[in-house]
Amino acid sequence: MATQGQVITCRAAVAWEANKPLVIEEVQVAPPQAGEVRVKILFTALCHTDAYTWSGKDPEGLFPCILGHEAAGIVESVGEGVTEVQPGDHVIPCYQAECRECKFCKSGKTNLCGKVRAATGVGVMMNDRKSRFSINGKPIYHFMGTSTFSQYTVVHDVSVAKIDPKAPLEKVCLLGCGVPTGLGAVWNTAKVEAGSIVAIFGLGTVGLAVAEGAKAASASRIIGIDIDSNKFDRAKDFGVTEFVNPKDHDKPIQQVLVDLTDGGVDYSFECIGNVSVMRAALECCHKGWGTSVIVGVAASGQEISTRPFQLVTGRVWKGTAFGGFKSRSQVPMLVDKYMKKEIKVDEYITHNLTLPEMNKAFDLLHEGSCLRCVLDMQV
Amino acid sequence: MATQGQVITCRAAVAWEANKPLVIEEVQVAPPQAGEVRVKILFTALCHTDAYTWSGKDPEGLFPCILGHEAAGIVESVGEGVTEVQPGDHVIPCYQAECRECKFCKSGKTNLCGKVRAATGVGVMMNDRKSRFSINGKPIYHFMGTSTFSQYTVVHDVSVAKIDPKAPLEKVCLLGCGVPTGLGAVWNTAKVEAGSIVAIFGLGTVGLAVAEGAKAASASRIIGIDIDSNKFDRAKDFGVTEFVNPKDHDKPIQQVLVDLTDGGVDYSFECIGNVSVMRAALECCHKGWGTSVIVGVAASGQEISTRPFQLVTGRVWKGTAFGGFKSRSQVPMLVDKYMKKEIKVDEYITHNLTLPEMNKAFDLLHEGSCLRCVLDMQV
Ligand SMILES: NC(=O)c1ccc[n+]([C@@H]2O[C@H](COP(=O)([O-])OP(=O)(O)OC[C@H]3O[C@@H](n4cnc5c(N)ncnc54)[C@H](O)[C@@H]3O)[C@@H](O)[C@H]2O)c1
Ligand SMILES: NC(=O)c1ccc[n+]([C@@H]2O[C@H](COP(=O)([O-])OP(=O)(O)OC[C@H]3O[C@@H](n4cnc5c(N)ncnc54)[C@H](O)[C@@H]3O)[C@@H](O)[C@H]2O)c1
Ligand SMILES: [Zn+2]
Ligand SMILES: [Zn+2]
Ligand SMILES: [Zn+2]
Ligand SMILES: [Zn+2]
Repeated sequence: MATQGQVITCRAAVAWEANKPLVIEEVQVAPPQAGEVRVKILFTALCHTDAYTWSGKDPEGLFPCILGHEAAGIVESVGEGVTEVQPGDHVIPCYQAECRECKFCKSGKTNLCGKVRAATGVGVMMNDRKSRFSINGKPIYHFMGTSTFSQYTVVHDVSVAKIDPKAPLEKVCLLGCGVPTGLGAVWNTAKVEAGSIVAIFGLGTVGLAVAEGAKAASASRIIGIDIDSNKFDRAKDFGVTEFVNPKDHDKPIQQVLVDLTDGGVDYSFECIGNVSVMRAALECCHKGWGTSVIVGVAASGQEISTRPFQLVTGRVWKGTAFGGFKSRSQVPMLVDKYMKKEIKVDEYITHNLTLPEMNKAFDLLHEGSCLRCVLDMQV
Repeated sequence: MATQGQVITCRAAVAWEANKPLVIEEVQVAPPQAGEVRVKILFTALCHTDAYTWSGKDPEGLFPCILGHEAAGIVESVGEGVTEVQPGDHVIPCYQAECRECKFCKSGKTNLCGKVRAATGVGVMMNDRKSRFSINGKPIYHFMGTSTFSQYTVVHDVSVAKIDPKAPLEKVCLLGCGVPTGLGAVWNTAKVEAGSIVAIFGLGTVGLAVAEGAKAASASRIIGIDIDSNKFDRAKDFGVTEFVNPKDHDKPIQQVLVDLTDGGVDYSFECIGNVSVMRAALECCHKGWGTSVIVGVAASGQEISTRPFQLVTGRVWKGTAFGGFKSRSQVPMLVDKYMKKEIKVDEYITHNLTLPEMNKAFDLLHEGSCLRCVLDMQV
């Protein structure tokens, strides 16, 4: 390609400061170094982690930066030693890397790869501990190793999943975060069995993907809990069979669920990020075996608590990151499942905007009607 | 037997009031009713749960009562419908029942039987919701469905394990609580695999049984943590390979362990009952897979807490009751293992006393040198 080895100047939504509107800027994107891949981002969605870091509440957030981590694109060029993808490949950038070599990847017990975390955690690339983004020479930090709010981004080769080129990128971009997180929480982390009673706290994208996963796992009852009753109608389409709005009850929500299920649920999922709901999600589990999975991300510094008796009497407390999916190996498999109509994706997309409308997309995140807003990045 | 169907008058250590010395009294023990078994207790040990309820700190403690739940004896007579044991059988009373019929027993997921809990939880027998113990007509409450601090006790048939009559009762009485709890925490609850790094907080009977279980599971490193360095020498015999005394370190103990193990342990066990140690035990676990099991029983009302990020990044928080062993089915198997010298029992017995010395046995519980004190109940 003509751009290979060159600095590319393109547009990106830059977060200059916490809590200030993003600015669409011309940015310079350096060529990929060894082990790196430059990707032309065609579509990106927004997720709460983008909004959380943008808000300034994330103590590890660095500014100025380019946010974004739920996207799809096409490889523009690759750095030295990159063998698994080549220019023209269709890819999904993965904030959760998979190197297949580190202690984590080799453990067979987790999807949390350790390879590039030291760099991605501080907004730079491993090779030279520098950013590939700059504006007139001033470096702009990377975010989550993905920075998909740019027309071109540079990612580590361990952080990019090559997918079926026939998959519509404007849809499968969602397989970069929220949908796999919910499905995997059920399939990989909780391992819900047929006939189980499941409770889902929070019916946003992640909670609905949990419902979809639980339905696929043949759960017998899928109880959706949300403080916004408007969520209930849509949730039916994703598999939720019963609804509870905590506001309709005087009793604590865990008690409501225990009463509703003759002793508690088999599996519960917290898909909000609220530490008191996390407690309720554990405590509504059945004595002896109920397992609660924390999926929501709480604000920094907040703590969960419960009486240890809850665990001594057999409940299990877990959590999940990216649903336990190994990114490079399994995101392509999820794309295939979508192509075979085994999992939904289109149904999570409630809004479509373009790169210049990025701030509007952030506003939509706080609107109850919005699940995922997909932005066309090349407009 | 001559006593069958008759009230038996015998001696028992009665807790008349919280925190007051037990009194050796003549008690009347009514014959077993339908589904009940009267057992002549030959030997009993003490466990912290006895001391906890005795202290008055247990809000569910009822007085006057007869404590005790780690014992062995011989069936004296059985009530109507009892088929699985008969007079003369050697047995271990089990505070954790196993009915094989309830939702819990049939789940295949837990050892927490629900059958008689409603009665044992309030110090009575299921049949008539009354006690079988009295002194001059005044009822004395049962405790944990076992009340082994009496020369004769009445238990539900679902709460008694028939064991090999060749097993020495003065030893295998320990298989009624502490030792199985530690072994089972490793084998049933955590399912420790060969090569694992294990941390054990608290090196009393339960912690040492965890060490023994971990050694049997071929753990590669078994790190014992205790604030009493005198515990360390003895712990070697139970399999502990390394020792850490938190008092020797300025850093939080979880950090000490993470540093010592290149990222954290695979499994940790809290065998103390201290909620801040429970937190440390979780947080010293390796990211991605480390599992912490709460074995110790905290005082009522106390809570555990941590940042949810600990779970979202792959740690698992569990607990165990009676080590997950199904009592009637598996206690006999543990007795067999002891007879085949596959598990230790004798080595946990540091003191031997007699029924009249019961209060001395309670004092010993608080002495660092004491693991288990076994009382000869027929003296
Ligand atoms: N663990 C991971 O890897 C991972 C990945 C992606 C997202 N997440 C997290 O998952 C969470 C959910 O994401 P989302 O995109 O679905 O969010 P969302 O905001 O679309 O959905 C949250 C839902 O929770 C409901 N809610 C809020 N407070 C509630 C309460 N007290 N009780 C019941 N319902 C309540 C809201 O009405 C909303 O429907 C977020 O915290 C996000 O950061 C985690
Ligand atoms: N879950 C169950 O089914 C079950 C069954 C039996 C016993 N238990 C509980 O297990 C616990 C242990 O029982 P045990 O008989 O072994 O008790 P123990 O008192 O003999 O042993 C406790 C050990 O912990 C050490 N310790 C105290 N504070 C400490 C600290 N801050 N850091 C490190 N070490 C510390 C003590 O020095 C002692 O060696 C108790 O809480 C008991 O109630 C639970
Ligand atoms: Zn996300
Ligand atoms: Zn890796
Ligand atoms: Zn005990
Ligand atoms: Zn049962």
